[in-house]
Amino acid sequence: MQFTGSHILSINQFEQQDVEYLFKVADAMQPYAQREKRTRVLDGAILGNLFFEPSTRTRVSFGCAFNLLGGHVRETTDIKTSSISKGESLYDTARVISGYSDVIAMRHPVAGSVEEFSRASRVPVINAGDGPSEHPSQALLDLYTIRKELGIQEPVASLRIAMVGDLKHGRTVHSLSKLLCLYRNIHFTLVSPRELCMPAEIVDYLRSKGHSVVETDNMQTGLNNNDTVYLTRIQEERFSNQSEADLYRGRFRLNQEIYTAHCKPNTVIMHPLPRDSRAEANELDNDLNQHPSLAIFRQTDNGVLIRMALFALTLGVAEEVHKHVEAVSWFTAKRFRNPPPIPT
Amino acid sequence: MQFTGSHILSINQFEQQDVEYLFKVADAMQPYAQREKRTRVLDGAILGNLFFEPSTRTRVSFGCAFNLLGGHVRETTDIKTSSISKGESLYDTARVISGYSDVIAMRHPVAGSVEEFSRASRVPVINAGDGPSEHPSQALLDLYTIRKELGIQEPVASLRIAMVGDLKHGRTVHSLSKLLCLYRNIHFTLVSPRELCMPAEIVDYLRSKGHSVVETDNMQTGLNNNDTVYLTRIQEERFSNQSEADLYRGRFRLNQEIYTAHCKPNTVIMHPLPRDSRAEANELDNDLNQHPSLAIFRQTDNGVLIRMALFALTLGVAEEVHKHVEAVSWFTAKRFRNPPPIPT
Amino acid sequence: MQFTGSHILSINQFEQQDVEYLFKVADAMQPYAQREKRTRVLDGAILGNLFFEPSTRTRVSFGCAFNLLGGHVRETTDIKTSSISKGESLYDTARVISGYSDVIAMRHPVAGSVEEFSRASRVPVINAGDGPSEHPSQALLDLYTIRKELGIQEPVASLRIAMVGDLKHGRTVHSLSKLLCLYRNIHFTLVSPRELCMPAEIVDYLRSKGHSVVETDNMQTGLNNNDTVYLTRIQEERFSNQSEADLYRGRFRLNQEIYTAHCKPNTVIMHPLPRDSRAEANELDNDLNQHPSLAIFRQTDNGVLIRMALFALTLGVAEEVHKHVEAVSWFTAKRFRNPPPIPT
Repeated sequence: MQFTGSHILSINQFEQQDVEYLFKVADAMQPYAQREKRTRVLDGAILGNLFFEPSTRTRVSFGCAFNLLGGHVRETTDIKTSSISKGESLYDTARVISGYSDVIAMRHPVAGSVEEFSRASRVPVINAGDGPSEHPSQALLDLYTIRKELGIQEPVASLRIAMVGDLKHGRTVHSLSKLLCLYRNIHFTLVSPRELCMPAEIVDYLRSKGHSVVETDNMQTGLNNNDTVYLTRIQEERFSNQSEADLYRGRFRLNQEIYTAHCKPNTVIMHPLPRDSRAEANELDNDLNQHPSLAIFRQTDNGVLIRMALFALTLGVAEEVHKHVEAVSWFTAKRFRNPPPIPT
Repeated sequence: MQFTGSHILSINQFEQQDVEYLFKVADAMQPYAQREKRTRVLDGAILGNLFFEPSTRTRVSFGCAFNLLGGHVRETTDIKTSSISKGESLYDTARVISGYSDVIAMRHPVAGSVEEFSRASRVPVINAGDGPSEHPSQALLDLYTIRKELGIQEPVASLRIAMVGDLKHGRTVHSLSKLLCLYRNIHFTLVSPRELCMPAEIVDYLRSKGHSVVETDNMQTGLNNNDTVYLTRIQEERFSNQSEADLYRGRFRLNQEIYTAHCKPNTVIMHPLPRDSRAEANELDNDLNQHPSLAIFRQTDNGVLIRMALFALTLGVAEEVHKHVEAVSWFTAKRFRNPPPIPT
Repeated sequence: MQFTGSHILSINQFEQQDVEYLFKVADAMQPYAQREKRTRVLDGAILGNLFFEPSTRTRVSFGCAFNLLGGHVRETTDIKTSSISKGESLYDTARVISGYSDVIAMRHPVAGSVEEFSRASRVPVINAGDGPSEHPSQALLDLYTIRKELGIQEPVASLRIAMVGDLKHGRTVHSLSKLLCLYRNIHFTLVSPRELCMPAEIVDYLRSKGHSVVETDNMQTGLNNNDTVYLTRIQEERFSNQSEADLYRGRFRLNQEIYTAHCKPNTVIMHPLPRDSRAEANELDNDLNQHPSLAIFRQTDNGVLIRMALFALTLGVAEEVHKHVEAVSWFTAKRFRNPPPIPT
């Protein structure tokens, strides 16, 4: 894969060596994200951060990653403020907005819309989520986290992962599953209510690539003997009616007691966030907040590294980053302290 | 006209020599907008980008122009988030916000409001559209585009232009018409439904300045023998009821077939955008997307140059831009490729 | 108080010497805010400007202050765009967002929420208003303004202040009152309808600290013999029904005639803004707009200095600011002209 000048639309674009290279570049971003030093490599460049669907985490993560490389961010956060409501095509929007940016990160509620947009864009477009379809930077940061947490230096050669919750609507588990197929010998345990199980075509795909897949609606069995447990929220916004979502909320929960009883020691705990911490849902309990295997906040931190790497690669400056280094003089110590106490 | 420190509120402020000077400065911005090099002339300056009415294109264009000169942008995009809903006067808003900015770009739904705001502002204010009234940077970029497309080096001395569509509500055709009156020997052909014709006082003004004006509701005749055809969208948001707008939508359309049949070869095709590409409107068909005379996306690109020039001039740094030049190291090649294919 | 790395949540954190030091740092920010020179001390740092409640003035003021120190701003302006609507806890939001920022300014409608957020944040958090509770930077800028307007160089040793209007709901008068208790010999005159009087616990607190407090619903008596008159708006958004707010609107007004008749010459006129300039309210009339004692716009200008100082102190660069100085080459003269004319 030629990164420079490319759109990043789907994890299907990536071969194993692309992922490995991307992760190397992400590793090299660590000291900048940690504020040990800073770089001005994209000083003067402009990110068009184009969010046609509400998002705080992903939007700010992309913006922050671009700022960390020294660039400016121009943001659009609401479809109502867009010419699209006046009948403008994505083609026109893309031709216009790409004239205002050096690279674009785009989220849109409609599957395929980011790809459609990218065909008319004069600058690289990074898919930040197109409805239920793709969100490649999330899958990449998830895999990157798994490797870091498990201390895997080489390409993944064997892994046992349980995915738990709403596997039908969860975009992240779909993408991560497919991405893991670039590697060998993955054991998937898919834990969900039958009605919210992983789509059959994805299960078939995983098996066709030679991986083992077990599907179950039994949480306790499912948690057994994994390297990683990946929990998800009931995606209530994708249900046609709220009362249907209520049926499933709170059915699969992980807390300290269940973890100790059923998970192998040091099983890495992941979640794409946001987690639903309301009492009726609470799929991942706050009593694990200080557990050393809880990786959920390291996931979001890793997201910044992955997005920095994607910007550096698509704009062709991955090897230039270190030529524009300056010192950091402000207070940064707090970032490295222990996890904050469990909220009461 | 003294640009430095001035508000830019109306095209009525401009004399011919001001326009000529502005366009020279805009020409000099080209290499920065094209990313051949970059400038830090406004590094540290702050633009207050104040949009009390939804806008993507214009808002991002102003922000991008300011970033391209090296400055920061602080943005307000929604009137609901404003103190104005608590009874604050524009006078107060202006005195406060102008303390947070070096220059302000402002859009507001009420005619005259930007001028009212500017009277209390301590920094230059650029009108980015005050309801149906003025949008001077749009008229300037339109004229700049006409000259570039037709290869006119000197002040315009003769021009045949057809304006088509909703000439009653279209702020851009009003402003462009008046701006063209600074030049000699303009032939206007005004094509619209009778009910949406150009306001009589503007027609009278054009004639009083010695220009020829023909009004018609016949599209075919109207397209004949022009240097430029300027199409507009039915401004449905300015109609009191939607069904009235529906009467006119789709009545004047330009597509490949009509262009070939009725327009002089190389007639420049313009549109202020957004164009309404829904089937029932489609005033400018996508089948012209790759036509070399389609200037609509060069218009928006030129908008960045014009806005860079307006910032540089009002802040008095037009002659300083080139003293703060640095190299661009990131990927920029895509900007120069051919138009993307016609969407299907 | 150790500023570096600290959260700024409440004026209760401040002792007299902290306020004095903060004001010294704010004084030193003046030439940067006035554009006599500029600094890049926070070049590369990121402010997370997190507004879960609408605000223009405070939001832009924090952003501007950070830009003036050279930093980037990543903004979130609407709770609807937040994961909180999907059941995310403030703990999670804080752990995630604090990974994207070097410092956070946060406004939230719920009292105590900023403090809750700060407990999980890895970076310093500055409270930009948590509902009816605290807004420390406003109280600090108010006190800073009083001192500058009255030419007080040393800690305040004696002051006569009248507070007028909705003293029940006005967050700013609560905080300023408490902050003034750090000093000696303050005479408070509290002018309000009985139903909107200052909460008894605050009055008791002021008296317990040895200050004199007079409560009255007579505007004319109340205005007599003060150094400063601090007016407030009826906080209609905090009333349970609008018609109740209507009872009080317009009952206590200051204009040129009343000022001349009842105020000591040179009494400083303050207001936290926005003022309600609609005819039925108009608590501070526009006919005082050019009065030399009208300090309301200097208050907002001082707010930038106070916020620059808070950023510089919490990030530990207060002594570094002057080591990163550069010249300002753009037009800045307008900032220093006379007040604009009274709007008609």
